[in-house]
Amino acid sequence: MNLFIYTSLDTNHRNILRQQLPPECNLVFRTELSPAEVEKAFQAAEVIMGNPPVDWFAQVPPKLVFWQLDSAGFDQYQNVKVSALTANMGDFFARPCAETMVGGILAFYRGIPELVKRQTTKEWRGNQIRPQLDLLGTKKVMVLGAGTIGMACKQMLKGFGCEVKTTARRNPEADIHSFEEILKNLPYTDVVVNTLPGAADKFVKEEFLQAMKPGSLYASVGRGSTTDEQALLVALQAGKLAGAVLDVTEQEPLPASSPFWEMENVLLTQHTGGGYFAEEAGKINQFLKNFTLFRNGEPITDQVNLAQGY
Amino acid sequence: MNLFIYTSLDTNHRNILRQQLPPECNLVFRTELSPAEVEKAFQAAEVIMGNPPVDWFAQVPPKLVFWQLDSAGFDQYQNVKVSALTANMGDFFARPCAETMVGGILAFYRGIPELVKRQTTKEWRGNQIRPQLDLLGTKKVMVLGAGTIGMACKQMLKGFGCEVKTTARRNPEADIHSFEEILKNLPYTDVVVNTLPGAADKFVKEEFLQAMKPGSLYASVGRGSTTDEQALLVALQAGKLAGAVLDVTEQEPLPASSPFWEMENVLLTQHTGGGYFAEEAGKINQFLKNFTLFRNGEPITDQVNLAQGY
Repeated sequence: MNLFIYTSLDTNHRNILRQQLPPECNLVFRTELSPAEVEKAFQAAEVIMGNPPVDWFAQVPPKLVFWQLDSAGFDQYQNVKVSALTANMGDFFARPCAETMVGGILAFYRGIPELVKRQTTKEWRGNQIRPQLDLLGTKKVMVLGAGTIGMACKQMLKGFGCEVKTTARRNPEADIHSFEEILKNLPYTDVVVNTLPGAADKFVKEEFLQAMKPGSLYASVGRGSTTDEQALLVALQAGKLAGAVLDVTEQEPLPASSPFWEMENVLLTQHTGGGYFAEEAGKINQFLKNFTLFRNGEPITDQVNLAQGY
Repeated sequence: MNLFIYTSLDTNHRNILRQQLPPECNLVFRTELSPAEVEKAFQAAEVIMGNPPVDWFAQVPPKLVFWQLDSAGFDQYQNVKVSALTANMGDFFARPCAETMVGGILAFYRGIPELVKRQTTKEWRGNQIRPQLDLLGTKKVMVLGAGTIGMACKQMLKGFGCEVKTTARRNPEADIHSFEEILKNLPYTDVVVNTLPGAADKFVKEEFLQAMKPGSLYASVGRGSTTDEQALLVALQAGKLAGAVLDVTEQEPLPASSPFWEMENVLLTQHTGGGYFAEEAGKINQFLKNFTLFRNGEPITDQVNLAQGY
């Protein structure tokens, strides 16, 4: 059985994968091949791990039976015609994404970016900074999306004492189910946390931002495309919003020309949301778990439908 | 009745206090007096709000009957001979202190100081930073002290999924009750959060730091004197600890000569822990609440015994 590993893994993790798979698996790693070999190996693949460029799928590998994505979202593949069983990383990224969101929001309210900068210049400015600080625990939060990231955010925010509402069109666990209801709640919301998938293109647009409470905070770990960045910039520059914590942007890396870089009230966490030191090990474990289920013909919880875009 | 307000309050908050107190109260604000008048007003005070310098109490105001401290700790006054009913700020600072601690710890694990610095130089380094990140939610935490700050830390950390143990000599709500038991638990502890009062002089000393788990994190919002800073510095420089989040230091402002300023794995939150924008309003409310109870002869929850040092 031909396994093609697109995911970048270090030597140590490539060896772990080799040791964990049965000998009938013919394992090839993209990072160990020449460009000509890569194309051939991809086309011969029966199993793929990772997220190859979309255009490679203009010709879908004919023998492909199982595809393990190494991301949570997969909207870039919604027009790819793959009939193989496909799985995503499930809630693997949920906790690190939620921790980066809550960490960024808390940093914003407790003045940590300012304190980090003062430390580099050895300026003790605590007394001047104190009156600018705020408390997360007194805030009403709306989490856009009630998936694994949204629910992890909710759980963490509850620990601070926040009142948290989640939104989702169909998920009955969510508190708010329509855009109209969202607009009605926004004037009473202190923090909006966006965890939306790519399918919700420009969900946070001018109308949304206009409805937000003056002085509120916007945070996003959803796809960059779900925020109308130009409208967000206007809302920030007009002083309508107190600030923004952005893990994602429409274009990544964020172009040097973006005004966000220099805005004191914007914290860019640079798409580090899903990351942590054990990321490669975690991805391997997820792949091995799902690949074993697939081989045994057992159901896979993290199976996805590419056409749904998430 | 002569009320002497030592606390610095802006015009707005001085006016609020004037409006809220009954007309028989003769209210004087330190910040509105000349130095000669201040001394006279202090000595004539029947009620004091705020924390005057310790040496002023060499001669205790003879008519003093009620003293509202504007801090949680008061170890600097433990040798002051005041028989007046004295109250502290109770749990007023607990939430902001705990939020700064948890915010600093989360910032450490999610790479926020590094991200803030990269933003100032417009460097998109997310992919390089991701493998250095860690998750708070997987950590075992020991909170030194089970007072209001410690308990607030515990509640917030639980929301992330942390296993949290608190320590206190006598408080039955705490999980650990002796220094020996602390030393036994330290090798299995990922994060230590110090919320100790000044009476616990150099509680975190070489023996303590030696017992800590390699690669663990030290965070402190307790009094600066409760940490042996020289021993902490040695533990950090030797790579024994992964880092430190320090809201307090032995000397404040921290001298420019301190190596902490330049250490990448040390985050200095500059004693901002207790602060937030509504601090003055909150202090006034606490004073008014306790002063009213005092006048009505009702019990005051936040009454303290100065000789106990906390």
